[in-house]
Amino acid sequence: MKFADYIKDYKNKINKAIQSIYDKKLDTTKNSFLKDYYSEMKDYFLTGGKRIRPLLCLATYYAFSENRDEIIITPSVGTEFLHNASLIHDDIIDKDNFRRGKPAFHFRFRNYHDKYNLKKSLASDFGNSIGIIGGDSAFIIGLEAYFTNDFEKDLNLNAIKYYEQAFIEIIHGVLIETDMVNHKEIAMDDYIEMISLKTGALIEKSILIGANYAKVDDKYKKYLSIYGINLGIIFQIIDDILGTFGDEKVTGKPTDGDIREGKRTCLLIEALNKSIPKNKKRIHELIERPEMSEEEVLEVKDLFLEADAISSCKELANGYFEEVKTALENLEPVINSSESEFYEDLLNFVYNRKF
Amino acid sequence: MKFADYIKDYKNKINKAIQSIYDKKLDTTKNSFLKDYYSEMKDYFLTGGKRIRPLLCLATYYAFSENRDEIIITPSVGTEFLHNASLIHDDIIDKDNFRRGKPAFHFRFRNYHDKYNLKKSLASDFGNSIGIIGGDSAFIIGLEAYFTNDFEKDLNLNAIKYYEQAFIEIIHGVLIETDMVNHKEIAMDDYIEMISLKTGALIEKSILIGANYAKVDDKYKKYLSIYGINLGIIFQIIDDILGTFGDEKVTGKPTDGDIREGKRTCLLIEALNKSIPKNKKRIHELIERPEMSEEEVLEVKDLFLEADAISSCKELANGYFEEVKTALENLEPVINSSESEFYEDLLNFVYNRKF
Repeated sequence: MKFADYIKDYKNKINKAIQSIYDKKLDTTKNSFLKDYYSEMKDYFLTGGKRIRPLLCLATYYAFSENRDEIIITPSVGTEFLHNASLIHDDIIDKDNFRRGKPAFHFRFRNYHDKYNLKKSLASDFGNSIGIIGGDSAFIIGLEAYFTNDFEKDLNLNAIKYYEQAFIEIIHGVLIETDMVNHKEIAMDDYIEMISLKTGALIEKSILIGANYAKVDDKYKKYLSIYGINLGIIFQIIDDILGTFGDEKVTGKPTDGDIREGKRTCLLIEALNKSIPKNKKRIHELIERPEMSEEEVLEVKDLFLEADAISSCKELANGYFEEVKTALENLEPVINSSESEFYEDLLNFVYNRKF
Repeated sequence: MKFADYIKDYKNKINKAIQSIYDKKLDTTKNSFLKDYYSEMKDYFLTGGKRIRPLLCLATYYAFSENRDEIIITPSVGTEFLHNASLIHDDIIDKDNFRRGKPAFHFRFRNYHDKYNLKKSLASDFGNSIGIIGGDSAFIIGLEAYFTNDFEKDLNLNAIKYYEQAFIEIIHGVLIETDMVNHKEIAMDDYIEMISLKTGALIEKSILIGANYAKVDDKYKKYLSIYGINLGIIFQIIDDILGTFGDEKVTGKPTDGDIREGKRTCLLIEALNKSIPKNKKRIHELIERPEMSEEEVLEVKDLFLEADAISSCKELANGYFEEVKTALENLEPVINSSESEFYEDLLNFVYNRKF
């Protein structure tokens, strides 16, 4: 089954499960501000998003199951809450005011503040406050996915452990990344560790939660882990390439952001590794500046190209791609063929994406 | 057993349980920034704090148990993580740079930024970012208290449900409070609902988690709930009084903060309810100002006194105090006498405190 077909078959059901969690909150809430808050949150959750994490949870459950019962849909949405919660907090930290073409969650409440002409606080403070609390609330509501389903309590407790582990790994990844910007030399291994924590861990845990409910044997979980972590690593490497050399019209993101921030991308690390000393010095000089002109950004891009950084990054991604292929070969004999196809198709989608 | 004796007997053990969670993180972490981060977090957690929530969890477990086995200590610390996590985020939201006489968690990383002369970000942004992530991390690590103990899985899953419920109620309380400052007229019922969510819920859930592990019958849980919620309400009413009319040397807090913020305290609500129209108008006029002079703050205090707001608030607290007494009378026949004494002593401590 192709990834696109999986989306077609299950995305609506996943969205309904998310919606029903927020509808329940709206039903039991009398306070008018809380009602506005949950309405915004529901709208935020239901705007865009491919639901890759719930789909991976579902697909893994179906990969090892005889039938396609839908009791897995409710717990599959847990990690989507964790994912969105961390986006809400990231957008405050990175001062990104838009997400998926609409206002970021905290920015919605900056607008709310303006709309009601609230006087005792600044609009930006009000937005950030509700955003901090909003992320907290999404983090914790995600656990409800494991309380309100028809699986055994033991399996739900295991799922919560995976959820907690994923959360801690994401936090470690974000902390390491926040610190990285202050280090001049970054080893590629440290970068890979950072992205495998920041992005790989939650994909891996979404898969393992599906495997947990399907009671998959431990010997197969290690291949599932490789698939999940490496998919995250590949996603992030491609993301770095597209972030600087992608087509803005296709990605919807400006291609100067990472360079201006001095973000430690794999492009930067490879460029520093492969450049001649003179160019390396110049790259350092430019990216350490608090402000950069358009010409200076272009100069950095040229220095990346001169060091052939894109090819090096693709080669790096390719190594992880090959590892996944081997892991999938080990899984193939024991999983359903339609999910075998799904795993492979999603891998190709992530590897070849242009947006 | 007196509250002070409970502290003497158990506080060190509770602190050791908290410490061991962070020591484990430090042991398994290689990244030097993560090590610094966890060291700060450990120090933050172990600086001050009476551990009322873990003590209530412990005491409730012992109230209904034959023996004093110490397996309850590990899960008792869960809600202390939730409490501290919400303080970390509150201090960012309220821009409070100090907590318990030491730098607030986010402020520690503002200092860290200065110390290492980090260039690519502002010290305040860096501090707030690590603070947002720090709160998240404390929120989720609290769950480990329910994974790593010797109780049955069912009981641990129940405890996690209480934890989640408490978290959501705190969030509701904080959201309602954040919104309240924008409403001119606040009904006392809404204020009580807000503080029972913001402060009462976590105290109640700490008690119910203890009751859960002691397998207490539901018919007694309702009295325990009344005790916990009302203790929180009384705490908050007294807090409001001390926040404006306490002795700064004893409380360690300036007595003009709440008035300047226009905070919807029970003093303000009672003063507005009881003042003659002219005074009421004047109070509104003063507290809506974005900036207030020292004289204006004193004028508000005088208007509070003229309306006899302190007595009204104490009367209000007294109503909740009497309710708790009745609840305790219902519990007395079925709980151990030393915990009966503990509950009563803690109630008196909270009701009569001057700091």
